[in-house]
Amino acid sequence: MTGDVKKLAVLGSTGSIGRQTLDIVRTLPEHFQIVGLAAGKNLDLLAEQANEFRPEFISFSVSDIDEDEASARLRTARCTFLSLEDMARLPDVDTVVVATSGTAGLSATLAAVEAGKNIALANKESLVAAGEIITDAARQSGAMILPVDSEHSAIWQCLSGEGRAVRRIILTASGGPFRDYSAAQMAAITVEQALKHPSWRMGRKVTVDSATLMNKGLEVIEARWLFDVSVEDIIVLIHPQSIVHSMVEFIDGSVKAQLSCPDMHLPIQYALSYPDRIDNPEIPAIDWNAFTGLTFEQPDMDRFPCLRLAVEAGRKGATFPAALCAADEAAVELFLSERIAFTDIARLVERVLEEHRPVEHPGLDDILAVDARVKEKVYQIAGGGH
Amino acid sequence: MTGDVKKLAVLGSTGSIGRQTLDIVRTLPEHFQIVGLAAGKNLDLLAEQANEFRPEFISFSVSDIDEDEASARLRTARCTFLSLEDMARLPDVDTVVVATSGTAGLSATLAAVEAGKNIALANKESLVAAGEIITDAARQSGAMILPVDSEHSAIWQCLSGEGRAVRRIILTASGGPFRDYSAAQMAAITVEQALKHPSWRMGRKVTVDSATLMNKGLEVIEARWLFDVSVEDIIVLIHPQSIVHSMVEFIDGSVKAQLSCPDMHLPIQYALSYPDRIDNPEIPAIDWNAFTGLTFEQPDMDRFPCLRLAVEAGRKGATFPAALCAADEAAVELFLSERIAFTDIARLVERVLEEHRPVEHPGLDDILAVDARVKEKVYQIAGGGH
Repeated sequence: MTGDVKKLAVLGSTGSIGRQTLDIVRTLPEHFQIVGLAAGKNLDLLAEQANEFRPEFISFSVSDIDEDEASARLRTARCTFLSLEDMARLPDVDTVVVATSGTAGLSATLAAVEAGKNIALANKESLVAAGEIITDAARQSGAMILPVDSEHSAIWQCLSGEGRAVRRIILTASGGPFRDYSAAQMAAITVEQALKHPSWRMGRKVTVDSATLMNKGLEVIEARWLFDVSVEDIIVLIHPQSIVHSMVEFIDGSVKAQLSCPDMHLPIQYALSYPDRIDNPEIPAIDWNAFTGLTFEQPDMDRFPCLRLAVEAGRKGATFPAALCAADEAAVELFLSERIAFTDIARLVERVLEEHRPVEHPGLDDILAVDARVKEKVYQIAGGGH
Repeated sequence: MTGDVKKLAVLGSTGSIGRQTLDIVRTLPEHFQIVGLAAGKNLDLLAEQANEFRPEFISFSVSDIDEDEASARLRTARCTFLSLEDMARLPDVDTVVVATSGTAGLSATLAAVEAGKNIALANKESLVAAGEIITDAARQSGAMILPVDSEHSAIWQCLSGEGRAVRRIILTASGGPFRDYSAAQMAAITVEQALKHPSWRMGRKVTVDSATLMNKGLEVIEARWLFDVSVEDIIVLIHPQSIVHSMVEFIDGSVKAQLSCPDMHLPIQYALSYPDRIDNPEIPAIDWNAFTGLTFEQPDMDRFPCLRLAVEAGRKGATFPAALCAADEAAVELFLSERIAFTDIARLVERVLEEHRPVEHPGLDDILAVDARVKEKVYQIAGGGH
């Protein structure tokens, strides 16, 4: 480290990535300081976090309470309330951690990018839906997008010190809890089953996306923007142990892989500490005495149509990825509230994409319009039967 | 690449690494040019190589023919004959490939280091026996030592773009052809069996060293010098597929691995093209459709005592590694000429090391003296029974 304390704003501090970000700050106070915390509906946890980390700025999206009540509940009168976008562009902040889920984080991400911040990006929907806008804006402002997803962190680490000599990217996927399920078994999957991931502990939306392999499809599109490679040059391999987090093949045939225990603290910390690495005893190390085998297999695009749909949307570009994101977000919500079956997620997404009329080189407004329209359409189809 | 053609001197051009170096030059003439070729006894092949690559300088160590005869046999009167050391310090050479085997390459390596050359080092005995001398001289002259061993090339690639945040190095080993042999089976191993390596095609000495795991022990010591880590922080893991060529664990728990098909052309080319990578269709790529499993296990120090002996010699330092190298070189020669059993290699090395009286911070003369004395002793013990 340079010796300076990095000042952080955490958007989505009460979610899984947000809480793990605060674990790191708690362990390494000599390296990181919280300037701003932003959360959605979990005001109680936000209050607890504010009490512990004493941020100067707070943001929350609960619309049915006023600032006085919020201030009282947050037990700290000294902090200032801001919108998510204003927090993302605070002058005093070095790195903005975007850990909100869904397309809600999109405009805050763009605000941080335009302000030229370092952005530790855990919200993959931003890049999937608006990859061209965000990467163009980052090029203009000089903002650095530091990936927090374990796979993209792996790729980024493998690219360290290398030029543009990349031949292809190999994204690994655990395969989720239903890797070996038959098509018949897939139709009967319950919410409880879908939320039990074999190797990763994550939020509900991304856990379901991991079970459908939609998550991996979104990651293909995310990688396409983060690393400027074409979707055709990204391979997905199933790797149930979740130890190899991804690989990069270079033009001379050499391949680099990044490995670690399946624990999000490492990719989060690396995005915060980059370009340095910090010893953190809380991050588990691989036990080399118990390191015996790593297995890999091809993904089954028939049983996991979401992966195929996402890759196709990524190839088509335009607003297809935005439509994909929105349809998936709505469909997963419907599944989690037990209003549709697990296999209906892919069906709904596929139908929406078939009917999608794309906008080429969309602006943020186009994307937000597609997002709203597609979500409404998914709820409509599901409500009316299909 | 910068566009400039790199000028190479290849010491040991008729050996396995030398021939593969010339394969690369043949495929990539726009990147590399041969200025000098040096060989030992295989004058016919050297002549063939000289005819194809038209070097300005030639070196050979056959003492019983004169220059005129050599010149006639080499079929090219225009090249100048040099000693190995003079070739190593030719002003016109960018990179010296040291691909001689055994301690014979030591003084040429040192000559190249002192001349501040880039040294593509395939001769591990130089660093094992004289690591302190060579690395000190390189620091003074600014010479870069570019490892050609697949394991050290892997570590070096994993360290690219990283600071000094290394926690440990994980050296992988194929385990050789006798990985599953019982102690009883080991005693009856023939030369023919020992020369059949399951995954690598290499020279005879290194193939036998791979079968005893002495090769891995020498690599531990080599890594200690190349990467300035202590022997205690280097772990050896058996990995029979020889796809993961080594790994580096960083202080934050992140691990990088380098993977490729078991083919020496890649590490040789990387040492020549560094810091760039070059697309070379002759180098095999991993087939991701057939990429299914990687296994790892702990090495058995009882059945493979050479590994234990080498690690101990590395820990002790001084002239122990030089004595180890010399004893092994002589013992392997005795095994290859069927004068001792396979398991006698470790016995001879162990006995020599037990009786070794070390010189601390040895000079080159000390090391060459140890080398000569130890080899003589091994032949003596073997001749007289032990």
